[in-house]
Amino acid sequence: MRHRLSALSVSLLLALGAGAAHADEGMWMPSQLPDIARQLKAAGFKGKPGDLAELARPPMNAVVKVGGASGAFVSKDGLVLTNHHVAFGVVQYNSKPGRDLIKDGYIASDRAGELPANPDYRVLVTTGFDRVTDSILAAARGKQGRAYYDAVDSASKAAVAKCESEPGYRCSIANMYYGTDFYLVRQLELRDVRLVYAPPNDIGNYGGEVDNFVWPRHAGDFTLLRAYVGKDGKPADYSADNVPYVPPAHLQVSTRNVKDGDFAMLAGYPGVTFRHRMASEFANQIQWQLPSRVALYQRMIDVVEAGGSKDEAARVSYASQVRGMKNTLKRAQGELDGLRRSDAAKVRRDDESAMYTWLDKQADAAATRADIDAAQAVIDQGVATRERDQLLGAIQSQTQLLRAAITLQRWAAERPKPDAQRETGYQQRDEVLITGQLKQVQRRYAPAIEKALLTELLTQYQALPVTQRVAEFDAVFGTRPAQLKTRLDALYAGTKLGDEATRLGAMESDSATLAESGDTLLKAAATLLPAIQRLDDESKASAGELLRLRPAYMRALIAFRKSQGRAVYPDANSTLRVSYGRISAMDPRDGVHYLPLTTVQGIVEKHTGEEPFNAPQPLRDAIAKGDFGSTAEPSLGTQTVDLMTNLDTTGGNSGSPVLDAKGDLIALNFDSNWEAVSASWMFDPRYKRAIHVDMRYLRWLLAKVYPAPHLLKEMNLPAE
Amino acid sequence: MRHRLSALSVSLLLALGAGAAHADEGMWMPSQLPDIARQLKAAGFKGKPGDLAELARPPMNAVVKVGGASGAFVSKDGLVLTNHHVAFGVVQYNSKPGRDLIKDGYIASDRAGELPANPDYRVLVTTGFDRVTDSILAAARGKQGRAYYDAVDSASKAAVAKCESEPGYRCSIANMYYGTDFYLVRQLELRDVRLVYAPPNDIGNYGGEVDNFVWPRHAGDFTLLRAYVGKDGKPADYSADNVPYVPPAHLQVSTRNVKDGDFAMLAGYPGVTFRHRMASEFANQIQWQLPSRVALYQRMIDVVEAGGSKDEAARVSYASQVRGMKNTLKRAQGELDGLRRSDAAKVRRDDESAMYTWLDKQADAAATRADIDAAQAVIDQGVATRERDQLLGAIQSQTQLLRAAITLQRWAAERPKPDAQRETGYQQRDEVLITGQLKQVQRRYAPAIEKALLTELLTQYQALPVTQRVAEFDAVFGTRPAQLKTRLDALYAGTKLGDEATRLGAMESDSATLAESGDTLLKAAATLLPAIQRLDDESKASAGELLRLRPAYMRALIAFRKSQGRAVYPDANSTLRVSYGRISAMDPRDGVHYLPLTTVQGIVEKHTGEEPFNAPQPLRDAIAKGDFGSTAEPSLGTQTVDLMTNLDTTGGNSGSPVLDAKGDLIALNFDSNWEAVSASWMFDPRYKRAIHVDMRYLRWLLAKVYPAPHLLKEMNLPAE
Repeated sequence: MRHRLSALSVSLLLALGAGAAHADEGMWMPSQLPDIARQLKAAGFKGKPGDLAELARPPMNAVVKVGGASGAFVSKDGLVLTNHHVAFGVVQYNSKPGRDLIKDGYIASDRAGELPANPDYRVLVTTGFDRVTDSILAAARGKQGRAYYDAVDSASKAAVAKCESEPGYRCSIANMYYGTDFYLVRQLELRDVRLVYAPPNDIGNYGGEVDNFVWPRHAGDFTLLRAYVGKDGKPADYSADNVPYVPPAHLQVSTRNVKDGDFAMLAGYPGVTFRHRMASEFANQIQWQLPSRVALYQRMIDVVEAGGSKDEAARVSYASQVRGMKNTLKRAQGELDGLRRSDAAKVRRDDESAMYTWLDKQADAAATRADIDAAQAVIDQGVATRERDQLLGAIQSQTQLLRAAITLQRWAAERPKPDAQRETGYQQRDEVLITGQLKQVQRRYAPAIEKALLTELLTQYQALPVTQRVAEFDAVFGTRPAQLKTRLDALYAGTKLGDEATRLGAMESDSATLAESGDTLLKAAATLLPAIQRLDDESKASAGELLRLRPAYMRALIAFRKSQGRAVYPDANSTLRVSYGRISAMDPRDGVHYLPLTTVQGIVEKHTGEEPFNAPQPLRDAIAKGDFGSTAEPSLGTQTVDLMTNLDTTGGNSGSPVLDAKGDLIALNFDSNWEAVSASWMFDPRYKRAIHVDMRYLRWLLAKVYPAPHLLKEMNLPAE
Repeated sequence: MRHRLSALSVSLLLALGAGAAHADEGMWMPSQLPDIARQLKAAGFKGKPGDLAELARPPMNAVVKVGGASGAFVSKDGLVLTNHHVAFGVVQYNSKPGRDLIKDGYIASDRAGELPANPDYRVLVTTGFDRVTDSILAAARGKQGRAYYDAVDSASKAAVAKCESEPGYRCSIANMYYGTDFYLVRQLELRDVRLVYAPPNDIGNYGGEVDNFVWPRHAGDFTLLRAYVGKDGKPADYSADNVPYVPPAHLQVSTRNVKDGDFAMLAGYPGVTFRHRMASEFANQIQWQLPSRVALYQRMIDVVEAGGSKDEAARVSYASQVRGMKNTLKRAQGELDGLRRSDAAKVRRDDESAMYTWLDKQADAAATRADIDAAQAVIDQGVATRERDQLLGAIQSQTQLLRAAITLQRWAAERPKPDAQRETGYQQRDEVLITGQLKQVQRRYAPAIEKALLTELLTQYQALPVTQRVAEFDAVFGTRPAQLKTRLDALYAGTKLGDEATRLGAMESDSATLAESGDTLLKAAATLLPAIQRLDDESKASAGELLRLRPAYMRALIAFRKSQGRAVYPDANSTLRVSYGRISAMDPRDGVHYLPLTTVQGIVEKHTGEEPFNAPQPLRDAIAKGDFGSTAEPSLGTQTVDLMTNLDTTGGNSGSPVLDAKGDLIALNFDSNWEAVSASWMFDPRYKRAIHVDMRYLRWLLAKVYPAPHLLKEMNLPAE
């Protein structure tokens, strides 16, 4: 049963597959599935691959975007299945003193008992996906840099505005293959979403942060919602008179058993991957970006913790920021370990070399290589200032008062402009968010720690070669470490931004008034702002150039793969994708084998009675009773909980339905394993796994533990 | 391949097997093996079980006690194989500036290059094992309590003295089945032991403390020594003229491959187990002893760490003690977790109940039950003062200056007696050890921390019911928490024992001189000493009573098992034992499967370049080269490192040879898994595993990595 690869055969496999689509790699656009029909059938799919390409036909029209992640319709009356963590905000929104739905879970006993979600919660059904490359690029052709960027941006905004003129739809432009193709995505926007069934948090999030990214896993991470529409069948805001939305199709939860090796397929909205980045970008990520991020965050954590050890109040103020920094550090370390384990830099470099060797024999090689070389030059330009960009980024993102001062100056600079012309993030709709951030400063700030953090970051910045330095930053903070203490002491002694009323009041001031205030930090921010805007412009100009030039690289890659008989999926970009593979065990390290199915025995083993391993009494009683009915896995003689596949997923795939060969719903995706953190850059078949709730666990919970017989009936499932 | 037990079938299995010998449980005396010949053959043993009973025949006469643990002869010229950690002192003894054998390892290129071990290092060959129950108990019969204890003690000492009158032998009395039977053990004592081959510590102890108790494991924990004797063939101290000892037999290292499920057998000197303790002792261990130990050590650690956080020098002084306390706490927690996981209290109670039900139908039930009840009463008496005994134990073991004061007073009290009549631990031969301890105090003591520790312990002591309190301790420390600070401050202000010269000088003083010194701590110790001696006497009286009474319980158990067709092995007591079972995978928890063989791939995966995962360059080069020759495991296509069996082992089994069905040496035992910490009380077949070096790893290291072709030849092994 075990598929063990020796070190040698893995090297061989990686060398052969070098960066290309492995048997189970791929986040395919549905429209691509007919192109890989043979592989799909060979993997075990029993349906017609052509059907999968049609967004208006089952099963694709049952897959939805929900709460920023994924989900699926599971009844003809608009019942939506997604993750507990995806619907957590809905559960929280409906909790209040005396009704703790997070702790207790919730079962609506009938339609009237279904609870409205927070008003901004959405279920989106993708109904259109049309290639609009020509119209998006029409005005951009012949332009370069920032002009190219702006032309694409304008054309995109115009296409979106036209599409959204029909009420009830949300539209967007999806950029495929890094500027090679553009698609207009049209989504029905369901605005009345209600909470139907949520397990207690101690089931939905069993294992919590401790088990996050961990296999074996034992969480029942699912929630049932229902989408409602107006009586006219059109999307509508919440109203008691609304009626359940009747989806064009829904998925049937499976009643069959599953086992290691079974075909599995997943549809959802993966967020972002970097699989088709250039070899030099892989090298930079592995050799510099991730190691330096680890080192930088470790130093910042050390600085804040050293400050906190002398000042309990400061320690509390920075607890959340330290948690965030530690999370960033952990993720970066995990990604780095994974990419090194997969030897990703070499694998990608060898693959790219092979592509160039092939390309150089083609007719249009010279023009293509010229564009690729130009793209490489833009990337190299970014590498030349990477140290500075990392440090200036941290100076703006990890400070509280300095960041507030810069935000206030930028707000004052953007506010006079017509709303549409303001920078993203400084439009009217952003005012509430900015105000909220300015209020939060109070609970997250201690002058001594902010100065210590800046001392650390600026000392590093001052040590950079002069070519990387920025005149305005030098002017404010000086160029020698010896100046730092005096400058920082003066900056923080002469500011009143530590006072909440002062900060919020400044939101109403124009640039001139801010200048007159004499506040030292606001004055410094006024000096820094032109530099920040200039760097921002430069960054958009580079983005425009890459948008123009990368397609040459992508077209070469696609043609090269085609010559090998293989298709190329675009990197993930939050659009609907399909991946296929199988229920799959894993050998995480020498001597250890992970089984692909977990059982309720693991819940009992992990139970400590304390968060995050506090299995509710009814669950423990039901496990002890052993009454598993039709939901038990016969080969194990017990109830399964979660299962693992080798499906290709990334952030955004939370809540993705997992289907079997016949298209029935066997599981619900909710996490990846720790070894797969690096999969955003490289899919390593040895380590890339996705973690799902086994639908038999959902069925058992609804049948025997927190019963909802009416919902089982609605989903056409047996009562026990 | 996997043997997975559902929760239900495990309960059933434990209920059926209730505390009795499972198929693979048992640390058998060699003399018992003919009694279980049928089981041995059924398990796959291909030899004659009768041969295993003969200490003077192979393979038992090749098994030795070495450095306090186990080992085996592996050549006709006295080559001894044991663990690197068992021979670590020998490696350390031969290291000096410029010759770091710990780091670099050692290969003696010829006999002349073999390095003498520290003079107290011994290889012992068991040559006699005779039942002497009648003579040991002759004088004890009719006596009780302390008198019974002393009679057994005297008879044992006399038997040992007589046996040791033959030069070159060390003898001891082994107590089997808790006083039921006594055996005279006669061992040839080889005093000239030399270092022949040691791998670098980064191989022998790869994984260090991090991997301790961990599977999967990747250590090459072995060393080769050679035993020498005088030219007359008799044991002798080191001399350049000595010749290799020619053992009566030696084991042949196997050249066959091994796999999951293969028969395995192990012989060695397991230290101590408690498997046949009474149900009430299991309950006390699980319900009180281990939880209270965990709590007590956690509080002591907290006290010392709180003190250390304010005083860096104190923190350093107590680092070693804190490490020891944390180790005790971890072991206790591991044992507790394991016993709870196995539901050991219930399993043992049910088994004992079944035994009583059976016993009550037998002819001699009444007399047996009377003895068992009396033994139970002695145990209950111990339970009645367990809180006090734990606290007074910690007060004496975890303090430095107070302990020194008590030791000095006891030394002064014992020294005037004839040496043979002194208490164990206070005889002439103990003087060096005591002096060493008194010197060490200097580096391990801070007055504030010792007072804080005593405050914690005495506050708990003072809260005990008056029935548990001891007048002398009350007199010294007071009976109310309010008195503690004053008393302790006075005690530590008025002592000069913090001065090393004063402590060492006091070793020469008699009780009267110590009394005149006016030292407050010595005065306190003089008050406490009669209480300590009284409690010691009480403890020996209880031990005597249990020695007299427990055999009734053990005889009942043995007869009960016999009625079930099963034999009973005695609890481990550092005598030669044999266990048999098989190479065995393990399911440590839901969803995780441990393979029974690890490979060199795991060394590469774990390698960080820093201790304890700093695989030497030659090893990494050899792995990368992949030249494994005849030592590779064909089914894995690579080199194995360690392997796991379900053999029944405990501390003392380090270095035990693991034999296959034909008696060839396939592995060398060196550790257990963490889940098996509780096996000293209960063998749970789901979790009890033993961890060994695969002999093919040894062969590969000697053939290809740190070559020693002459040793391979001597062991009759292929050159590669």
